[in-house]
Amino acid sequence: MNRNIKCEISYDGTDFHGFQIQPNHRTVQGELESALYRLTKQKISINASGRTDAGVHAKKQVCNFITDSNIPGEKWRLALKPELPDDIIMVNTTEAPLSFHSRFDVKKKTYRYYIYHHMSPDIFHRRFSWHYPYKLDLELMQVASQLFEGEHDFTNFSSARTDKENKIRRIDEAMLWKEGNEIIFQISGSGFLYNMVRIIMGTLIEVGRKKMNKEEIIPLFYTKEKILKAKTAPAHGLSLWDVQY
Amino acid sequence: MNRNIKCEISYDGTDFHGFQIQPNHRTVQGELESALYRLTKQKISINASGRTDAGVHAKKQVCNFITDSNIPGEKWRLALKPELPDDIIMVNTTEAPLSFHSRFDVKKKTYRYYIYHHMSPDIFHRRFSWHYPYKLDLELMQVASQLFEGEHDFTNFSSARTDKENKIRRIDEAMLWKEGNEIIFQISGSGFLYNMVRIIMGTLIEVGRKKMNKEEIIPLFYTKEKILKAKTAPAHGLSLWDVQY
Repeated sequence: MNRNIKCEISYDGTDFHGFQIQPNHRTVQGELESALYRLTKQKISINASGRTDAGVHAKKQVCNFITDSNIPGEKWRLALKPELPDDIIMVNTTEAPLSFHSRFDVKKKTYRYYIYHHMSPDIFHRRFSWHYPYKLDLELMQVASQLFEGEHDFTNFSSARTDKENKIRRIDEAMLWKEGNEIIFQISGSGFLYNMVRIIMGTLIEVGRKKMNKEEIIPLFYTKEKILKAKTAPAHGLSLWDVQY
Repeated sequence: MNRNIKCEISYDGTDFHGFQIQPNHRTVQGELESALYRLTKQKISINASGRTDAGVHAKKQVCNFITDSNIPGEKWRLALKPELPDDIIMVNTTEAPLSFHSRFDVKKKTYRYYIYHHMSPDIFHRRFSWHYPYKLDLELMQVASQLFEGEHDFTNFSSARTDKENKIRRIDEAMLWKEGNEIIFQISGSGFLYNMVRIIMGTLIEVGRKKMNKEEIIPLFYTKEKILKAKTAPAHGLSLWDVQY
Protein backbone atom coordinates (compact mmCIF):
# COMPACT_ATOMS: atom_id res chain seq x y z
CA MET A 1 0.00 0.00 0.00
CA ASN A 2 1.37 3.40 -0.93
CA ARG A 3 1.91 5.90 1.84
CA ASN A 4 3.00 9.53 1.83
CA ILE A 5 5.77 10.47 4.25
CA LYS A 6 6.22 14.12 5.17
CA CYS A 7 9.66 15.14 6.49
CA GLU A 8 10.88 18.26 8.19
CA ILE A 9 14.62 18.69 7.63
CA SER A 10 17.40 21.18 8.43
CA TYR A 11 20.62 21.55 6.54
CA ASP A 12 23.84 23.49 6.47
CA GLY A 13 24.01 24.54 2.80
CA THR A 14 27.75 25.37 2.82
CA ASP A 15 28.95 22.16 1.23
CA PHE A 16 26.00 21.55 -1.13
CA HIS A 17 25.40 22.68 -4.70
CA GLY A 18 21.88 23.59 -3.63
CA PHE A 19 18.85 21.44 -2.94
CA GLN A 20 17.96 20.08 -6.37
CA ILE A 21 19.56 16.86 -7.58
CA GLN A 22 22.30 17.32 -10.23
CA PRO A 23 24.70 14.85 -11.75
CA ASN A 24 28.27 15.03 -10.38
CA HIS A 25 27.38 17.49 -7.63
CA ARG A 26 26.62 17.02 -3.98
CA THR A 27 23.04 18.20 -3.39
CA VAL A 28 20.59 17.90 -0.50
CA GLN A 29 18.07 16.02 -2.63
CA GLY A 30 20.79 13.70 -3.89
CA GLU A 31 21.91 12.86 -0.35
CA LEU A 32 18.32 12.32 0.81
CA GLU A 33 17.48 10.03 -2.11
CA SER A 34 20.66 7.97 -1.61
CA ALA A 35 19.87 7.65 2.10
CA LEU A 36 16.37 6.44 1.19
CA TYR A 37 17.85 4.00 -1.30
CA ARG A 38 20.28 2.55 1.25
CA LEU A 39 17.43 2.15 3.72
CA THR A 40 14.72 0.73 1.44
CA LYS A 41 16.63 -0.54 -1.65
CA GLN A 42 14.04 1.39 -3.65
CA LYS A 43 14.47 4.43 -5.89
CA ILE A 44 12.34 7.01 -4.11
CA SER A 45 12.09 10.56 -5.41
CA ILE A 46 11.57 13.45 -3.07
CA ASN A 47 9.51 16.63 -3.41
CA ALA A 48 10.37 19.71 -1.37
CA SER A 49 8.60 22.99 -0.64
CA GLY A 50 11.02 24.54 -3.11
CA ARG A 51 14.66 24.51 -4.16
CA THR A 52 17.30 26.39 -2.26
CA ASP A 53 20.36 27.69 -4.11
CA ALA A 54 23.96 26.61 -3.61
CA GLY A 55 25.12 27.79 -0.18
CA VAL A 56 21.63 28.58 1.16
CA HIS A 57 20.69 26.83 4.42
CA ALA A 58 17.43 25.55 5.85
CA LYS A 59 16.33 25.70 9.45
CA LYS A 60 13.07 24.09 8.28
CA GLN A 61 12.57 22.63 4.84
CA VAL A 62 9.58 20.34 4.21
CA CYS A 63 9.72 17.34 1.85
CA ASN A 64 7.52 14.38 1.07
CA PHE A 65 7.85 11.07 -0.72
CA ILE A 66 5.61 8.16 -1.68
CA THR A 67 6.64 4.67 -0.60
CA ASP A 68 5.14 1.22 -0.11
CA SER A 69 7.56 0.50 2.74
CA ASN A 70 5.79 -0.41 5.98
CA ILE A 71 8.06 1.72 8.23
CA PRO A 72 5.63 3.81 10.34
CA GLY A 73 5.64 7.58 9.63
CA GLU A 74 7.31 8.74 12.84
CA LYS A 75 9.98 5.94 12.65
CA TRP A 76 11.54 7.22 9.44
CA ARG A 77 13.41 9.90 11.38
CA LEU A 78 15.47 7.43 13.37
CA ALA A 79 15.72 4.93 10.50
CA LEU A 80 17.24 7.58 8.21
CA LYS A 81 19.53 9.11 10.85
CA PRO A 82 22.51 6.74 10.33
CA GLU A 83 22.19 7.11 6.54
CA LEU A 84 22.39 10.91 6.49
CA PRO A 85 25.53 13.08 6.46
CA ASP A 86 26.24 15.44 9.38
CA ASP A 87 25.04 18.50 7.50
CA ILE A 88 21.46 17.25 7.05
CA ILE A 89 19.25 16.73 10.10
CA MET A 90 15.96 14.86 9.84
CA VAL A 91 13.98 16.80 12.43
CA ASN A 92 10.63 15.11 12.14
CA THR A 93 8.73 12.59 9.99
CA THR A 94 5.00 11.84 9.90
CA GLU A 95 2.55 10.09 7.61
CA ALA A 96 0.49 12.55 5.53
CA PRO A 97 -2.61 12.03 3.36
CA LEU A 98 -1.70 10.73 -0.12
CA SER A 99 -2.94 14.04 -1.55
CA PHE A 100 -0.31 16.09 0.33
CA HIS A 101 2.40 17.66 -1.86
CA SER A 102 5.18 19.63 -0.17
CA ARG A 103 5.50 22.11 -3.06
CA PHE A 104 1.95 22.59 -4.37
CA ASP A 105 0.35 22.86 -0.93
CA VAL A 106 2.61 25.56 0.56
CA LYS A 107 0.61 28.41 2.15
CA LYS A 108 3.46 30.52 3.44
CA LYS A 109 7.25 30.48 3.48
CA THR A 110 9.58 32.42 5.73
CA TYR A 111 13.22 33.23 5.05
CA ARG A 112 15.81 34.81 7.27
CA TYR A 113 18.92 36.64 6.18
CA TYR A 114 21.70 37.03 8.79
CA ILE A 115 24.32 39.76 8.64
CA TYR A 116 27.24 39.71 11.04
CA HIS A 117 27.72 43.44 11.48
CA HIS A 118 31.07 44.10 13.07
CA MET A 119 34.51 45.30 12.02
CA SER A 120 36.05 41.82 12.41
CA PRO A 121 34.46 38.61 11.20
CA ASP A 122 33.39 36.03 13.80
CA ILE A 123 34.44 32.41 13.43
CA PHE A 124 31.20 31.10 14.96
CA HIS A 125 29.00 33.01 12.49
CA ARG A 126 31.10 32.44 9.39
CA ARG A 127 28.92 29.75 7.76
CA PHE A 128 25.48 31.26 8.39
CA SER A 129 25.95 35.04 8.32
CA TRP A 130 27.26 37.52 5.81
CA HIS A 131 30.06 39.52 7.41
CA TYR A 132 29.44 43.19 6.70
CA PRO A 133 31.99 45.55 8.30
CA TYR A 134 30.73 48.95 7.08
CA LYS A 135 28.43 51.48 8.70
CA LEU A 136 24.68 50.92 8.26
CA ASP A 137 21.70 53.04 9.30
CA LEU A 138 19.46 50.41 10.88
CA GLU A 139 16.41 52.66 11.22
CA LEU A 140 16.42 53.50 7.50
CA MET A 141 16.68 49.79 6.73
CA GLN A 142 13.77 49.00 9.04
CA VAL A 143 11.50 51.57 7.39
CA ALA A 144 12.55 50.40 3.91
CA SER A 145 11.96 46.72 4.71
CA GLN A 146 8.29 47.40 5.44
CA LEU A 147 7.80 48.79 1.94
CA PHE A 148 8.08 45.25 0.58
CA GLU A 149 4.95 44.13 2.43
CA GLY A 150 1.82 43.68 0.31
CA GLU A 151 1.25 42.49 -3.26
CA HIS A 152 3.83 43.79 -5.73
CA ASP A 153 5.44 43.08 -9.07
CA PHE A 154 8.91 41.88 -8.06
CA THR A 155 10.48 41.94 -11.55
CA ASN A 156 13.18 44.32 -10.33
CA PHE A 157 13.78 42.18 -7.24
CA SER A 158 14.37 38.87 -8.99
CA SER A 159 16.99 37.35 -11.21
CA ALA A 160 16.42 37.52 -14.96
CA ARG A 161 17.31 33.81 -14.96
CA THR A 162 13.79 32.53 -14.26
CA ASP A 163 11.11 30.67 -16.18
CA LYS A 164 8.26 32.23 -14.22
CA GLU A 165 6.27 34.79 -16.15
CA ASN A 166 4.11 36.07 -13.35
CA LYS A 167 6.34 38.23 -11.14
CA ILE A 168 3.60 39.30 -8.75
CA ARG A 169 4.01 37.98 -5.21
CA ARG A 170 2.39 38.77 -1.88
CA ILE A 171 4.63 39.51 1.10
CA ASP A 172 2.87 39.16 4.44
CA GLU A 173 5.66 40.42 6.64
CA ALA A 174 9.12 41.90 6.21
CA MET A 175 11.01 42.96 9.31
CA LEU A 176 14.54 43.71 10.36
CA TRP A 177 16.15 43.85 13.81
CA LYS A 178 19.49 43.54 15.58
CA GLU A 179 20.54 40.91 18.15
CA GLY A 180 24.06 41.44 19.49
CA ASN A 181 26.24 41.92 16.42
CA GLU A 182 23.72 40.28 14.08
CA ILE A 183 21.23 42.03 11.86
CA ILE A 184 18.34 39.70 11.07
CA PHE A 185 15.99 40.28 8.15
CA GLN A 186 12.90 38.07 8.12
CA ILE A 187 10.45 37.91 5.24
CA SER A 188 7.29 35.80 4.85
CA GLY A 189 5.02 35.36 1.87
CA SER A 190 3.09 33.03 -0.38
CA GLY A 191 5.97 32.58 -2.79
CA PHE A 192 9.34 33.96 -3.82
CA LEU A 193 11.07 34.46 -7.16
CA TYR A 194 14.60 33.38 -8.01
CA ASN A 195 17.14 35.32 -5.85
CA MET A 196 14.33 37.56 -4.56
CA VAL A 197 15.28 37.59 -0.86
CA ARG A 198 18.96 38.13 -1.64
CA ILE A 199 18.18 41.03 -4.00
CA ILE A 200 15.83 42.64 -1.44
CA MET A 201 18.59 42.23 1.18
CA GLY A 202 21.10 43.84 -1.22
CA THR A 203 18.65 46.73 -1.68
CA LEU A 204 18.25 47.20 2.08
CA ILE A 205 22.05 47.34 2.36
CA GLU A 206 22.12 50.14 -0.24
CA VAL A 207 19.52 52.00 1.82
CA GLY A 208 21.48 51.39 5.04
CA ARG A 209 24.65 52.73 3.39
CA LYS A 210 22.66 55.76 2.16
CA LYS A 211 23.56 54.96 -1.45
CA MET A 212 19.86 54.59 -2.21
CA ASN A 213 16.89 56.48 -0.91
CA LYS A 214 13.92 54.51 0.43
CA GLU A 215 11.67 56.60 -1.86
CA GLU A 216 13.31 54.88 -4.83
CA ILE A 217 11.85 51.49 -3.86
CA ILE A 218 8.10 51.84 -4.53
CA PRO A 219 8.52 53.04 -8.18
CA LEU A 220 10.47 49.82 -8.88
CA PHE A 221 7.25 47.84 -8.35
CA TYR A 222 5.66 49.72 -11.29
CA THR A 223 8.14 48.97 -14.04
CA LYS A 224 9.11 45.83 -15.94
CA GLU A 225 12.41 47.47 -16.86
CA LYS A 226 15.32 46.13 -14.80
CA ILE A 227 16.72 49.34 -13.37
CA LEU A 228 17.63 48.35 -9.80
CA LYS A 229 21.39 48.53 -9.30
CA ALA A 230 21.63 46.82 -5.87
CA LYS A 231 23.91 43.80 -5.57
CA THR A 232 22.53 40.39 -4.72
CA ALA A 233 23.53 39.58 -1.13
CA PRO A 234 25.65 36.39 -0.89
CA ALA A 235 23.94 33.03 -0.50
CA HIS A 236 25.50 31.95 2.79
CA GLY A 237 23.58 34.56 4.87
CA LEU A 238 20.22 33.14 3.73
CA SER A 239 18.21 30.39 5.42
CA LEU A 240 14.79 28.97 4.62
CA TRP A 241 13.31 29.40 8.08
CA ASP A 242 9.77 28.00 8.02
CA VAL A 243 7.19 26.52 5.66
CA GLN A 244 3.52 26.51 6.47
CA TYR A 245 0.68 24.48 4.94
CA MET B 1 66.24 43.98 12.99
CA ASN B 2 64.24 41.32 14.78
CA ARG B 3 60.72 42.16 15.82
CA ASN B 4 58.12 40.26 17.82
CA ILE B 5 54.63 40.11 16.30
CA LYS B 6 51.70 39.25 18.57
CA CYS B 7 48.56 37.88 16.86
CA GLU B 8 45.07 37.33 18.09
CA ILE B 9 43.37 34.60 16.07
CA SER B 10 40.05 32.70 15.97
CA TYR B 11 39.51 29.30 14.45
CA ASP B 12 36.87 26.69 13.80
CA GLY B 13 38.58 23.54 15.07
CA THR B 14 36.27 21.10 13.24
CA ASP B 15 38.59 20.35 10.34
CA PHE B 16 41.91 20.54 12.19
CA HIS B 17 43.89 17.87 14.01
CA GLY B 18 44.40 20.37 16.82
CA PHE B 19 46.65 23.40 17.08
CA GLN B 20 50.12 21.87 17.21
CA ILE B 21 51.99 21.17 13.99
CA GLN B 22 52.13 17.47 12.99
CA PRO B 23 53.40 15.81 9.84
CA ASN B 24 50.65 14.67 7.43
CA HIS B 25 47.85 16.37 9.38
CA ARG B 26 46.09 19.66 8.90
CA THR B 27 46.77 21.75 12.02
CA VAL B 28 46.25 25.41 12.92
CA GLN B 29 49.95 25.97 13.54
CA GLY B 30 50.79 24.26 10.24
CA GLU B 31 48.41 26.53 8.32
CA LEU B 32 49.71 29.65 10.08
CA GLU B 33 53.34 28.78 9.40
CA SER B 34 52.65 28.02 5.73
CA ALA B 35 50.80 31.31 5.40
CA LEU B 36 53.80 33.10 6.93
CA TYR B 37 56.12 31.25 4.57
CA ARG B 38 54.10 32.21 1.48
CA LEU B 39 54.08 35.83 2.63
CA THR B 40 57.72 36.24 3.72
CA LYS B 41 59.54 33.28 2.05
CA GLN B 42 61.01 32.65 5.49
CA LYS B 43 60.54 29.70 7.84
CA ILE B 44 58.91 31.34 10.85
CA SER B 45 57.84 29.30 13.84
CA ILE B 46 54.89 30.32 15.92
CA ASN B 47 54.28 30.15 19.68
CA ALA B 48 50.76 30.09 21.06
CA SER B 49 49.23 30.51 24.53
CA GLY B 50 48.78 26.74 24.50
CA ARG B 51 47.73 23.87 22.27
CA THR B 52 44.11 23.08 21.64
CA ASP B 53 43.08 19.48 20.91
CA ALA B 54 41.62 18.15 17.69
CA GLY B 55 38.11 19.57 17.23
CA VAL B 56 38.48 22.32 19.86
CA HIS B 57 37.82 25.87 18.65
CA ALA B 58 39.20 29.26 19.58
CA LYS B 59 37.30 32.52 19.84
CA LYS B 60 40.58 34.10 20.95
CA GLN B 61 43.93 32.36 20.78
CA VAL B 62 47.11 34.42 21.12
CA CYS B 63 50.31 33.65 19.20
CA ASN B 64 53.62 35.39 18.58
CA PHE B 65 56.54 35.04 16.22
CA ILE B 66 59.92 36.65 15.67
CA THR B 67 60.72 38.05 12.24
CA ASP B 68 63.12 40.46 10.60
CA SER B 69 60.49 41.42 8.01
CA ASN B 70 59.74 45.13 7.94
CA ILE B 71 55.95 44.75 7.67
CA PRO B 72 54.54 47.00 10.45
CA GLY B 73 52.83 45.15 13.36
CA GLU B 74 49.25 46.12 12.59
CA LYS B 75 49.68 45.43 8.83
CA TRP B 76 50.30 41.68 9.29
CA ARG B 77 46.56 41.11 9.74
CA LEU B 78 45.67 42.24 6.22
CA ALA B 79 48.87 40.86 4.70
CA LEU B 80 48.11 37.36 6.03
CA LYS B 81 44.38 37.43 5.23
CA PRO B 82 44.64 36.16 1.63
CA GLU B 83 47.06 33.42 2.74
CA LEU B 84 44.81 31.95 5.42
CA PRO B 85 42.05 29.36 4.99
CA ASP B 86 38.41 30.25 5.80
CA ASP B 87 38.48 28.50 9.15
CA ILE B 88 41.23 30.70 10.63
CA ILE B 89 40.62 34.40 11.19
CA MET B 90 43.46 36.78 11.96
CA VAL B 91 41.60 39.16 14.29
CA ASN B 92 44.42 41.50 15.27
CA THR B 93 48.20 41.89 14.99
CA THR B 94 50.52 44.24 16.87
CA GLU B 95 54.21 44.58 17.55
CA ALA B 96 55.16 43.42 21.06
CA PRO B 97 58.41 43.80 23.05
CA LEU B 98 60.98 41.15 22.07
CA SER B 99 60.63 39.66 25.58
CA PHE B 100 56.93 38.80 25.07
CA HIS B 101 56.15 35.07 24.82
CA SER B 102 52.54 34.01 24.19
CA ARG B 103 52.85 30.85 26.30
CA PHE B 104 55.15 31.79 29.18
CA ASP B 105 53.52 35.15 29.86
CA VAL B 106 49.88 34.00 30.13
CA LYS B 107 48.19 35.35 33.27
CA LYS B 108 44.73 33.91 32.77
CA LYS B 109 42.88 31.73 30.28
CA THR B 110 39.14 31.36 29.81
CA TYR B 111 37.36 28.44 28.14
CA ARG B 112 33.71 28.03 27.25
CA TYR B 113 31.86 24.79 26.76
CA TYR B 114 28.58 24.96 24.81
CA ILE B 115 25.83 22.37 25.15
CA TYR B 116 22.85 22.48 22.81
CA HIS B 117 20.18 21.21 25.18
CA HIS B 118 17.11 20.21 23.21
CA MET B 119 15.45 17.04 22.02
CA SER B 120 16.43 17.63 18.38
CA PRO B 121 19.84 18.79 17.25
CA ASP B 122 20.15 22.22 15.61
CA ILE B 123 21.97 22.61 12.33
CA PHE B 124 23.30 26.07 13.22
CA HIS B 125 24.88 24.86 16.46
CA ARG B 126 26.24 21.53 15.18
CA ARG B 127 29.91 22.54 14.88
CA PHE B 128 30.32 24.47 18.15
CA SER B 129 27.95 22.84 20.64
CA TRP B 130 27.54 19.36 22.03
CA HIS B 131 23.96 18.23 21.41
CA TYR B 132 22.62 16.77 24.66
CA PRO B 133 18.97 15.66 24.45
CA TYR B 134 18.43 14.31 28.00
CA LYS B 135 17.04 15.96 31.12
CA LEU B 136 19.50 18.00 33.22
CA ASP B 137 19.03 19.76 36.56
CA LEU B 138 20.59 23.13 35.83
CA GLU B 139 20.56 24.37 39.42
CA LEU B 140 22.52 21.34 40.64
CA MET B 141 25.04 21.92 37.85
CA GLN B 142 25.38 25.59 38.80
CA VAL B 143 26.09 24.80 42.44
CA ALA B 144 28.54 22.04 41.47
CA SER B 145 30.41 24.26 39.00
CA GLN B 146 31.33 26.69 41.78
CA LEU B 147 33.08 23.91 43.70
CA PHE B 148 35.86 23.98 41.12
CA GLU B 149 36.83 27.56 42.02
CA GLY B 150 40.00 27.96 44.09
CA GLU B 151 43.32 26.11 44.16
CA HIS B 152 42.94 22.34 43.85
CA ASP B 153 44.77 19.19 42.83
CA PHE B 154 43.09 18.32 39.51
CA THR B 155 44.60 14.82 39.10
CA ASN B 156 41.11 13.33 38.90
CA PHE B 157 40.02 15.99 36.44
CA SER B 158 42.78 15.51 33.89
CA SER B 159 43.83 12.88 31.42
CA ALA B 160 46.49 10.39 32.52
CA ARG B 161 48.19 11.21 29.20
CA THR B 162 50.16 14.20 30.42
CA ASP B 163 53.78 15.00 31.11
CA LYS B 164 53.00 17.57 33.79
CA GLU B 165 53.77 16.40 37.32
CA ASN B 166 52.23 19.26 39.21
CA LYS B 167 48.46 18.85 38.98
CA ILE B 168 47.63 21.82 41.18
CA ARG B 169 45.85 24.64 39.36
CA ARG B 170 43.99 27.76 40.44
CA ILE B 171 40.50 28.36 39.04
CA ASP B 172 39.37 31.97 39.37
CA GLU B 173 35.84 31.54 38.13
CA ALA B 174 33.59 28.68 37.03
CA MET B 175 30.02 29.51 36.08
CA LEU B 176 27.19 27.95 34.14
CA TRP B 177 24.06 29.51 32.64
CA LYS B 178 21.45 28.98 29.94
CA GLU B 179 20.76 31.17 26.87
CA GLY B 180 17.87 29.92 24.77
CA ASN B 181 18.53 26.23 24.22
CA GLU B 182 22.22 26.54 25.02
CA ILE B 183 23.90 25.75 28.31
CA ILE B 184 27.18 27.66 28.61
CA PHE B 185 29.91 26.68 31.05
CA GLN B 186 32.71 29.22 31.43
CA ILE B 187 35.88 28.59 33.38
CA SER B 188 38.90 30.87 33.94
CA GLY B 189 42.20 30.15 35.59
CA SER B 190 45.96 30.43 35.52
CA GLY B 191 46.40 27.13 33.68
CA PHE B 192 44.64 23.94 32.67
CA LEU B 193 45.72 20.30 32.47
CA TYR B 194 45.16 18.00 29.49
CA ASN B 195 41.40 17.44 28.94
CA MET B 196 40.63 19.24 32.21
CA VAL B 197 37.72 21.40 31.01
CA ARG B 198 36.13 18.49 29.12
CA ILE B 199 36.39 16.21 32.18
CA ILE B 200 34.93 18.90 34.46
CA MET B 201 32.10 19.35 31.93
CA GLY B 202 31.53 15.58 31.89
CA THR B 203 31.36 15.66 35.70
CA LEU B 204 28.82 18.49 35.68
CA ILE B 205 26.70 16.43 33.27
CA GLU B 206 26.77 13.50 35.72
CA VAL B 207 25.61 15.88 38.46
CA GLY B 208 22.89 17.31 36.19
CA ARG B 209 21.64 13.80 35.38
CA LYS B 210 21.70 13.00 39.14
CA LYS B 211 24.09 10.10 38.55
CA MET B 212 26.60 11.82 40.81
CA ASN B 213 26.11 13.87 43.93
CA LYS B 214 27.82 17.26 44.18
CA GLU B 215 29.22 16.15 47.59
CA GLU B 216 31.35 13.62 45.71
CA ILE B 217 33.40 16.35 44.00
CA ILE B 218 35.46 17.91 46.83
CA PRO B 219 36.96 14.58 48.04
CA LEU B 220 38.33 14.04 44.51
CA PHE B 221 40.69 17.00 45.05
CA TYR B 222 42.30 15.12 47.95
CA THR B 223 43.35 11.92 46.25
CA LYS B 224 45.94 11.06 43.62
CA GLU B 225 44.02 7.88 42.82
CA LYS B 226 42.01 8.17 39.57
CA ILE B 227 38.53 7.28 40.81
CA LEU B 228 36.31 9.71 38.89
CA LYS B 229 34.03 7.83 36.49
CA ALA B 230 32.62 10.81 34.51
CA LYS B 231 33.05 10.74 30.74
CA THR B 232 35.13 13.36 28.97
CA ALA B 233 32.74 15.71 27.14
CA PRO B 234 33.36 15.77 23.35
CA ALA B 235 35.89 18.22 21.92
CA HIS B 236 33.58 20.10 19.57
CA GLY B 237 31.66 21.85 22.40
CA LEU B 238 34.86 23.45 23.72
CA SER B 239 36.32 26.82 22.75
CA LEU B 240 39.31 28.70 24.05
CA TRP B 241 37.53 31.96 24.76
CA ASP B 242 40.10 34.46 26.04
CA VAL B 243 43.75 34.74 27.01
CA GLN B 244 45.02 37.50 29.26
CA TYR B 245 48.59 38.70 29.88
